[in-house]
Amino acid sequence: MYELTIPLNEEGKPLYEQIYEYIKTQIRERNLPAGIRLPSSRMLAAHLGVSRSTTQLAYDQLLSEGYLESEPRRGYYVAQLDVLFHFKAEQKTEMKKKQKENRSWVCDFSPRGVDLDSFPYGIWKKLSNNILNEDNRILFSAGENKGDYALRQAICTYLYGARGVNCRPEQLIVGAGNEYLLMLLNQILGDSSVIAMETPTYTQAYRVFERLGHRIVPVEMDAAGMETEKLSESGADIAYVMPSHQFPTGIVMPIRRRMELLSWAAKKEGRYLIEDDYDSEFRYRGKPIPSLQSADRGGQVIYLGSFSRAVAPAIRVSYMMLPERLLDVYEKTCSFYASTVSRVDQRILTEFITGGYYERHLNKMRSIYKAKHDALLAALEPLEGAFSVSGEYAGIHILLKSREELSEEEMVARAAEKGVRVYGLSEFDIRTRKEEKEAGTVLLGYASLGKEEIQKGAALLCAAYCQVRSTVQEDRACAEAEASSAV
Amino acid sequence: MYELTIPLNEEGKPLYEQIYEYIKTQIRERNLPAGIRLPSSRMLAAHLGVSRSTTQLAYDQLLSEGYLESEPRRGYYVAQLDVLFHFKAEQKTEMKKKQKENRSWVCDFSPRGVDLDSFPYGIWKKLSNNILNEDNRILFSAGENKGDYALRQAICTYLYGARGVNCRPEQLIVGAGNEYLLMLLNQILGDSSVIAMETPTYTQAYRVFERLGHRIVPVEMDAAGMETEKLSESGADIAYVMPSHQFPTGIVMPIRRRMELLSWAAKKEGRYLIEDDYDSEFRYRGKPIPSLQSADRGGQVIYLGSFSRAVAPAIRVSYMMLPERLLDVYEKTCSFYASTVSRVDQRILTEFITGGYYERHLNKMRSIYKAKHDALLAALEPLEGAFSVSGEYAGIHILLKSREELSEEEMVARAAEKGVRVYGLSEFDIRTRKEEKEAGTVLLGYASLGKEEIQKGAALLCAAYCQVRSTVQEDRACAEAEASSAV
Repeated sequence: MYELTIPLNEEGKPLYEQIYEYIKTQIRERNLPAGIRLPSSRMLAAHLGVSRSTTQLAYDQLLSEGYLESEPRRGYYVAQLDVLFHFKAEQKTEMKKKQKENRSWVCDFSPRGVDLDSFPYGIWKKLSNNILNEDNRILFSAGENKGDYALRQAICTYLYGARGVNCRPEQLIVGAGNEYLLMLLNQILGDSSVIAMETPTYTQAYRVFERLGHRIVPVEMDAAGMETEKLSESGADIAYVMPSHQFPTGIVMPIRRRMELLSWAAKKEGRYLIEDDYDSEFRYRGKPIPSLQSADRGGQVIYLGSFSRAVAPAIRVSYMMLPERLLDVYEKTCSFYASTVSRVDQRILTEFITGGYYERHLNKMRSIYKAKHDALLAALEPLEGAFSVSGEYAGIHILLKSREELSEEEMVARAAEKGVRVYGLSEFDIRTRKEEKEAGTVLLGYASLGKEEIQKGAALLCAAYCQVRSTVQEDRACAEAEASSAV
Repeated sequence: MYELTIPLNEEGKPLYEQIYEYIKTQIRERNLPAGIRLPSSRMLAAHLGVSRSTTQLAYDQLLSEGYLESEPRRGYYVAQLDVLFHFKAEQKTEMKKKQKENRSWVCDFSPRGVDLDSFPYGIWKKLSNNILNEDNRILFSAGENKGDYALRQAICTYLYGARGVNCRPEQLIVGAGNEYLLMLLNQILGDSSVIAMETPTYTQAYRVFERLGHRIVPVEMDAAGMETEKLSESGADIAYVMPSHQFPTGIVMPIRRRMELLSWAAKKEGRYLIEDDYDSEFRYRGKPIPSLQSADRGGQVIYLGSFSRAVAPAIRVSYMMLPERLLDVYEKTCSFYASTVSRVDQRILTEFITGGYYERHLNKMRSIYKAKHDALLAALEPLEGAFSVSGEYAGIHILLKSREELSEEEMVARAAEKGVRVYGLSEFDIRTRKEEKEAGTVLLGYASLGKEEIQKGAALLCAAYCQVRSTVQEDRACAEAEASSAV
């Protein structure tokens, strides 16, 4: 039998813990070899001058963790730990922190920005406080897997009114962001499919599909959007489209093309259209364009929407509407997945929609974004002639295209020289082999910028682009731009 | 040219919208055939007695949606819509509502329950209100993809202290629930792997792996958990284990077995152990068992944890710790995924942990659950002899096993006759071919029940099981149980 003299410290850790840790360390360091018998808990207690329950607790813990073994009426033995412990010093290989491009821009026309100043913070806070003040303890128990019914109902009602989407709350799945919903959809659609995507497109969705193992076929667009004939030839089963306001081109798909896509889908079983209606709320001329889903009579459209763009990015709530056939598959194979959105957030959003705040917020944002949009177009007027604007009157960015002289690279570089960041259209091109160099096109996002920033940035841009034009027809405008950018 | 007489209503919808809808309907119903030329906006305005901007707006909208086409200086034509509209009446096939088993139980020993009454509602509300009152507008902008650094740091510190987990915040990914994190992990691990799981096991994780297309090999357990030899023979690359408190058996894996698993993983590149430490916080005797990860020196363990069990189910926050090799893969291939947890929730949780509330909450829950646990064990004493209890002193359920007479089915049925719901162990068995019938074992969860409910339910159970015992050795106890259940 081994005698244990354990140095104990009356203050600090509980005595049983000190005993436990001492013995454990001795075993791990091979000072207490395997097979050796330890004193009984009674003997050890007497030896150390502590109570028996103290030593018993320490032994029990060592037994639980497997450092000791016990035999009835024979006592405690050090366990056979024949697998070596490796005590390599922890090599915490600190990853080199990527030196993030931290350049400070005079004006960053990011197409990903949002206007956070206009986030309805006060209302959100009020709703949140009210909900928690009501002792809604139930909101911390598990909710419905598809999302709480009240929220799904509120979204359906909104979608029907605003987007013409026909759906029952049962068809709707609420989830923490589009990416999560696409992961879920991937499991509903089953084996990896061939997915057709517009090019250029929303590259985040492209990455998700790629990571999930799908083959992606880029399909070219004409002025009406994805070309049906090319889609038919592509061998795709699924087409991912943004018919109401294609990102990044801003193309609105006319009704004829929509009907063509719907007939393409109807021609073969298992064909679906994924409609990503990502920012259809923002349109500054006329009424919103109805959704593709609103024209779907055959249950061919999977409709995706989100509050991240319309309310705020950190509100991780998106929704996906499944046609009946896919809903059946979901119910059978994927309905075990618990909801990914906290119920408090679901409840806040429900009241935000049903209380009329959402509509008011959208109206307000529409007018704020329209003012920024108008300011940008006005400030770019000096470039008229040598440059053309497209994708305007909707969304939160426009496209600026050089009619001839400048390549995309040059447009980005010239702007950067003036401290202005613009985004090349080719960033969103998903073709593996790009076509011969086209005239340069850049994206100018304006959501996160103030009116003065927009004017300043646009003036700098005019100056940057005027300077290099070979056929300067509007010297006066350029000079003005130069002057105003210097202010 | 076609003359349009459109019935206009001065009240109600804007005039341009009435014009737009009238024309659209006429086109859809083929009353305005394709190719026909419409009056100019000026002429139509004069004809209808409205302003020209009104008719222009209507035409613009119809153009945007593709119902009309325009030719410069020639006017507006109805577009060629050669794809037929299908006006099938919407067949909203209301899904038959599953008649949910809505039986009301006298006592439901669900192992999935949690004690919601003890949720720290007041503190959660206070933290939430404080955070929103501080005008934390920034919390509504997009945060870090892995989760906010402060939260990851708080979790790391907690995990190191409480579970011995060695990790840097950089290795931690915060996500909306374990299932989401497993979907992400699936993409990090790449092609479908063979995954070894203990049987019985946590069936939710089993379903996720199955849906994601993995082949799952059930590996038998002995008293020390997953059998290493069988794991080696299984052909698996990944083993999913719950070493500190296996669900549902409650087995604690001793250190020797842990070292064996770690050496199994070290033997071949690409082998990993997924440690799901789902409820390690609740242990009622001695100290918590350290995590498997704490003994990992080779970077073989992926560590998964969650606040859903420890705080509340609707707090959809889990975390996954990646070893360095997998972290590299994540950074290269999956770091584009945005976080799935709202930043307000992340912030509340951060303050909940760093403010010491989490530890206090765990201590409180440990003592509440221990009291329930003790009450259940005491109330089941009459069954001693013919039944044995295992998996006690930890977690929120125990296992009750019939030593001989009763099958699982009978145990569930007899209990149900008394209005008591118990859960058969075989529900969690993932073997496709089950072994010959073993003596019945049922799970009794107690987290969501009050002490009196537990006593009442246990007494009914004693009565139910005593009645059918052929060799009743403790008639007195049974009679007492019967009597007390009748109260």
